[in-house]
Amino acid sequence: MAKGLQTRERILDTAFRLAAREGLDGLSLSTLAGELGLSKSGLFAHFTSKEELQLEMLREASRQFVDMVMTPAFQKGRGLPRLKALFDNWRQWMTSLPGGCIFVAASAELDDREGPVRALVVEQQRELLKALARTARICVEEGHFRADLDVDQFAFDVLGIYLAFHEIHRLLREPRAEQRARRSFARLVEDAEIRQ
Amino acid sequence: MAKGLQTRERILDTAFRLAAREGLDGLSLSTLAGELGLSKSGLFAHFTSKEELQLEMLREASRQFVDMVMTPAFQKGRGLPRLKALFDNWRQWMTSLPGGCIFVAASAELDDREGPVRALVVEQQRELLKALARTARICVEEGHFRADLDVDQFAFDVLGIYLAFHEIHRLLREPRAEQRARRSFARLVEDAEIRQ
Repeated sequence: MAKGLQTRERILDTAFRLAAREGLDGLSLSTLAGELGLSKSGLFAHFTSKEELQLEMLREASRQFVDMVMTPAFQKGRGLPRLKALFDNWRQWMTSLPGGCIFVAASAELDDREGPVRALVVEQQRELLKALARTARICVEEGHFRADLDVDQFAFDVLGIYLAFHEIHRLLREPRAEQRARRSFARLVEDAEIRQ
Repeated sequence: MAKGLQTRERILDTAFRLAAREGLDGLSLSTLAGELGLSKSGLFAHFTSKEELQLEMLREASRQFVDMVMTPAFQKGRGLPRLKALFDNWRQWMTSLPGGCIFVAASAELDDREGPVRALVVEQQRELLKALARTARICVEEGHFRADLDVDQFAFDVLGIYLAFHEIHRLLREPRAEQRARRSFARLVEDAEIRQ
């Protein structure tokens, strides 16, 4: 049992490493088995299809996202401290992953593919936008943000800053990427704050 | 000669259709030849490698982007009318393409692959950010935007709105995607305008 779990973990680690280069859809079970020194049937004991592997990778990434981004943010005070922590952790999440953010890659790769993998990515992205909107809503409740703020629009804007950051950091390797993201977020927060 | 050009065009059209589903990197010359009813050597008379095909697709997409987005915007008045037209045309560019924006897909796919295809995507994205910043700079010169506006930051923010729009329109199929993008852009412009 323990060994089975270890193998499963090792498979997922290697799959993440390969997907960072080849994309979630560029993964091949044969290449993966080769990298792991497993027989194809050894690999199939854990994952019977590429789809099953992709689903488990997304679930695992989501668990890690909760651990690294959401949970520490929720230990901060309600409202603005929590929102700021969430955005800081989210940026750190992306820069700490050698292959970048798997959700960004999956979103761009899967927008035209119907099926359970796309459905899971959609569900995860909706959850993220909801969590951002909820966090902004608490900022309103705490009196940190103005009462008429459109919190879903706010969540959309935070997503935009993150995606632009991802692109100029990972693709353009722009040294000021982090600074740009921080500034845009600060402007967005300022705009949402109570105005005198 | 004319027939050769027609075939080349037909190859590119089919390649764009396949890439919309499979990604720029998921393209295979064999599948492409099969779809076109060409022999592999017939296809190789036009493109000798997948890399050459990808480069030509990106160049062709860039020409179409100039025709659909940039040129019509540059026929508008200097400053804000041009900037607004650019953003409108850019949104329309994305929603009119059945496979979404090839540059968004390419950016996410290629951020970890060194080579000439990545280099071209980087160059194209830098050009786009420069064009956005230049357009904002003209808004400053025309007195539409405040003099202390950081035009590179402005370009970063417009890119973010576009990327968030792409994701919630294409992946989440959110009916209000267009409205969200327009609102965020309007807020960004308002923030950049001369304040009394």
